[in-house]
Order: sequence, then C-alpha cells, then structure tokens
Amino acid sequence: MKAAGGYKVAIVGATGLVGEEMRAVLQERRFPVRELKLRASSRAAGRALSWGDRQVEVETLISDSFTGVDIALFSAGSGVSLDYAPAARDAGAVSIDNSSAWRMDPDVPLVVPEVNPGALADHGGIIANPNCSTIQLVMALKPLHDLWKMKRVVISTYQAVSGTGREAVDELLEQTRDILADRAPRADIYAHPIAFNLFPHIDVFQDSGYSKEEIKMIAETRKIMGLPQLRITATAARVPVVTGHSESVNIEFEREIDLAQARQVLADSPGITLLDDPKTDSYPTPLAAAGTDSTYIGRLRRDESVENGLNLWVVADNLRKGAALNAVQIAEGLVDRDWLR
Amino acid sequence: MKAAGGYKVAIVGATGLVGEEMRAVLQERRFPVRELKLRASSRAAGRALSWGDRQVEVETLISDSFTGVDIALFSAGSGVSLDYAPAARDAGAVSIDNSSAWRMDPDVPLVVPEVNPGALADHGGIIANPNCSTIQLVMALKPLHDLWKMKRVVISTYQAVSGTGREAVDELLEQTRDILADRAPRADIYAHPIAFNLFPHIDVFQDSGYSKEEIKMIAETRKIMGLPQLRITATAARVPVVTGHSESVNIEFEREIDLAQARQVLADSPGITLLDDPKTDSYPTPLAAAGTDSTYIGRLRRDESVENGLNLWVVADNLRKGAALNAVQIAEGLVDRDWLR
Repeated sequence: MKAAGGYKVAIVGATGLVGEEMRAVLQERRFPVRELKLRASSRAAGRALSWGDRQVEVETLISDSFTGVDIALFSAGSGVSLDYAPAARDAGAVSIDNSSAWRMDPDVPLVVPEVNPGALADHGGIIANPNCSTIQLVMALKPLHDLWKMKRVVISTYQAVSGTGREAVDELLEQTRDILADRAPRADIYAHPIAFNLFPHIDVFQDSGYSKEEIKMIAETRKIMGLPQLRITATAARVPVVTGHSESVNIEFEREIDLAQARQVLADSPGITLLDDPKTDSYPTPLAAAGTDSTYIGRLRRDESVENGLNLWVVADNLRKGAALNAVQIAEGLVDRDWLR
Repeated sequence: MKAAGGYKVAIVGATGLVGEEMRAVLQERRFPVRELKLRASSRAAGRALSWGDRQVEVETLISDSFTGVDIALFSAGSGVSLDYAPAARDAGAVSIDNSSAWRMDPDVPLVVPEVNPGALADHGGIIANPNCSTIQLVMALKPLHDLWKMKRVVISTYQAVSGTGREAVDELLEQTRDILADRAPRADIYAHPIAFNLFPHIDVFQDSGYSKEEIKMIAETRKIMGLPQLRITATAARVPVVTGHSESVNIEFEREIDLAQARQVLADSPGITLLDDPKTDSYPTPLAAAGTDSTYIGRLRRDESVENGLNLWVVADNLRKGAALNAVQIAEGLVDRDWLR
C-alpha cells in the first residue's frame, strides 16, 4: 500500500523518552506522515506535543485507537504491547514494537534494517524492535561475521540510565545533586544509588544467575543474525551516564583476521562511524554519541589470547539507534518495499 | 630485624590520595610504627598531617630522606620511585612501591599477600605493589585457578577516577556541577569529560592499540600468578565513579567447574567477601566497596558459550586493596617473617 498523501502513524507511549525520540526522528527523516496520532496512558493524555509547527494532543490509548492507522510505533512497555498490538493488527495497522513482548515470537520478525532487512518480508502485522544493547552489538558483529565467521563472542556492557526511562534519568540527576551536597542519595527506581556508582543489574535476574537483559542480548543476537547456535555470553551493567550505551566486545573468529580490513569494512558499513585512532584520543564515548544516529566503533585490536581474536568498543545512542531510529528505519523499510498491509 | 619499639616508616607521596590512605591503613591496622616520616614534593612540604593524636609535618623528599628508615612506602609516581627507591635501598630501607616503575623488573617481587606471599622472600630492597585493577583481579583468579586451572581470561574494567589522583576526582565533581548547571564541562586531566560519560582510555596507548593499563593487567597478572603464558586479554575503561574499581571477568578453565564449590572457596578465601545473591540485589558495587578492605565477588554464573566457562563480577576499593592496604599488607608480611633487611 503506497499512500501518496503519506501514512497515518500512531506513537503509543508518546510521552516517554523513546516516544519523544520517535516523534523527533520521524520529523528529521521526513517520514511521509499524513496524520500523527499520539497515544499514552490516561495519566499523560491531554498534553499537547509539537509536530512541526503544529501541536498534537496526546490521547488515551484505547482498543479503538488504531482505526485507519497504517503504522503504530509502540514504546509503552511489554504489557501495553501484548494487549494492544493485536488490536492494531486487527485494525489493519503494522505495529513496530520497542518492547520485549514479541521479540522472541517465532512469527514476529526482529529487525535491524542494516543487518537483516529481509526478515521484514514475512511480517504478519507485528515487527519487533530489538533491545537497545543488542542493536548496536549486531551492527558491529554483522560486517565482521560476514568477513570471517564468528566463533564466540564475550560482551560486557556499560548502559545508560535513559534506557530505563525518564524517572531513572531524574533519579540519577537527583542523587548526583544529593551526593554533591553531602546528602544521602535516595534510590527508588534502582536497587542501589546509581550516581557515582554502577551495578551489574539490568532487568530481573533468572535462576541461571543471568539478568533478563543479558539473556535478551544473547537470544536476540542469535535471532537477528540467524545463528541460533552462536556461542555468546554477556554481562550487562548500568552506569551513571544519561544517554549512550557502551560495549566492550571480544570476538573469536573462524578465519584469520586482518585489522586494516576490519576497519575498512566497518567504515564502509551503513550506519557505522569508525572512531579508531586512540593515540589522538579518538574512540567512541557515550557523551559524544548521545543525540546522534551512528553506531560508533573503535579500539580495534588483536586479542592475542586466542587465535583470530579481536577486541572492540561499540557505542550508540540507546534512545535513537537503540530504539526510536531503528523503529523508524523499519517503517521506512516497509514503505520502500511496499510491505505495509 | 625485629624492632621491639617498632619501625621507622616513611610515606613518600604522603599528601596524595594513596599516601593519605597509607597513613590511615597503618593506623587502623596498628602497624608497629616507631616513627613516621611524611615526604612529598617541595610544593606540598610544610603541611602538618594527623597521626594518632599528633601532627606530623610533611618534609620535602631528598636523597637523604631514608636515613634510619626501615620501610619506605612509595606512592608518588614512577619518576620519583625510579629516582629514590635505590637511595632508600642503599640507606638500608625496604621500599614498597605503588608505582609501575619496578613491577616488571625480574629482580623485584610483585606481590599480593593473599596470592603470592612467598615472592617476598627474594626481595632485594624493593618490592612492587601491583596495579590497582590487577590486585583485585588476581584476588579473584587465584582461588579459582587452584581449583580448576585457568585456560583463558577476558576482562573488561570499570575504573574509578581516584585511581588517577585527587585532581581527577576534583575534575569529575567540577564537571558534574557544570553539567547540572548547563555549563560546558572543561576537561583538563582526561582527554574527554568524565562526568556522565566514560571512555576506554586509561594511561597511554601503545602501537598495538592497547593502553598501558591493559598491558599492565595482562603482564602483572602473569607475573604474580607465575603463569607467564596465561592467555588473558583486557579492556580498561574509566567511569564516573569516585572510588571503587569494578571488573567483568570471563574465565575458561581446563577442568570441569562447579558453581557451589566456587562460591564456597571464594567465601573462604582471606580478603574476599562473596556477595552473590542477585535476586535480593546482592552483588558488588563500587559505592558500597569504597572505604572498605575486601575484594567483593559476585554474579557467578556459568558461561554456556564455552566448556568450563565462568562469568563473575569483582569490585574493590582501588585506594585500599588496590594500593595502600596491599602495600601495608606487604610490610606486615615482611615484619611477620622477619624479612626486613
């Protein structure tokens, strides 16, 4: 369905950090929006948010919210997605869902457009946007896997608080002010203060000892890359950074590697910016990545502890490439290929 | 030489963060100090620092500073250690050096008392205190290596700014205030702002692409553990934490592992506190570790991506176990074994 006048797009969770970023990205990329609907819980409804030179009122999400909608961008948590994405589908919309609700459903494509755009073809009305830390990881892994075939991956993450949402950003800033003023910081959102601190705890822990975040990274990477047996392990940590996830990535390859070739291939890959001249202080950092669209890669070096080993450092804005941008890129992919329903 | 009245101890670099901590640790542990000499650059000389209920004046470091000194604790940078530790040795003192100057000298023992106390026996008047990030790492590795023999280790660090010194702590706090007040942060100590940011850059970069910090961790771990061929790689990152280094450690063992046994052996190891009940939010964090003496270990779980793989999380106060405490423990080891000269 190509719509000459553009598409009716709904953002569900419009007042959240990712919802806001979705609105910004749609506008920046001039996505052909004919009509924009902003949806949120009744608590947030009634507010007016800017859309170009107009204001759009946020409306309460109800099951009738999807009448006439072509594309629904969801970022309001798993519960909302589970409840409402089927309603959107029944109303004829394609849902692009930023929650974890549908990601591992075998009938739902899990897509990073630079990595597995073909997976979009088979969608049945719901497409899952991967976890923020997974998106930037597969952006880095894919070009290198195509070169030398991955054997094993070991990741440690340094994840920003905006991944949790606006309350977590507020808590970081509030705790920071408290500590600077010698007041005891109060932790509501996280189990421990995050200001001037960090912890290996993102999402809830499973019996295996892994956090759900770590399990998501492992499972989603395998699904996106079509490598169900990929040997991969992860440790996910929250750090006192507002926006921008960083990842220390160690990869063992099947075939002989070449650093110059890795740099060339990564630099030539769409969506990737190579920042790899450490002697001139050039490497990715979250503060520099925040507010931008690239996945930044640097610190490429041989890991001499294993044959064909490579260490690298990957940073991206978790709200943009890690969430809103990737979702809008999925929508663009659907429109370009005429894969809306 | 057992001295009934105690020992004449000099702290070189007495006004630095580690020098201050050395003074505190000597006192807390009731190290038998007969006389305390505090030495620093001429810039810091003249200040009086507390020692029990007395004040001790900081004197300028000169080559004659070691007359009659039994133990000299150095923490004033590699240049000072290279210049003055030989003078201290010639004057009959044993130097315990916190800089990197002597660590890889084959004639100088590099010691973590819980790990390789026997190496103290052969000292020739200079003993090196390992790098902060190395000390807590080998504290965790040794008991596990003794159980199952390590095959390969992959580490990513999350290192606090107090490892750099007082100016870096001030810079973090100043930049934090600037960012909270919407002022542009100014970076003098580091190449990039560290407040609400982080970077994979500690110490200078070598042609291999590794930072000196990463190389130190690799080389010092091999030396301390007596495993010159140990397969080990590291990524070292600086994070906006004041005190307390964290490490994500991935280990592959030769023999079959058992999580319950690992927990038991670690919990029973001197100097280690096991904090490993993630479902009740129990795991090591730097804010909780700061100001304490233990090496904290948690998040133990099988790495299913490799045979006999284990992930864990290690945190310690980089100024205490990572520097001052370990140095004083070395001094205690010398005294206990009558290994002073």
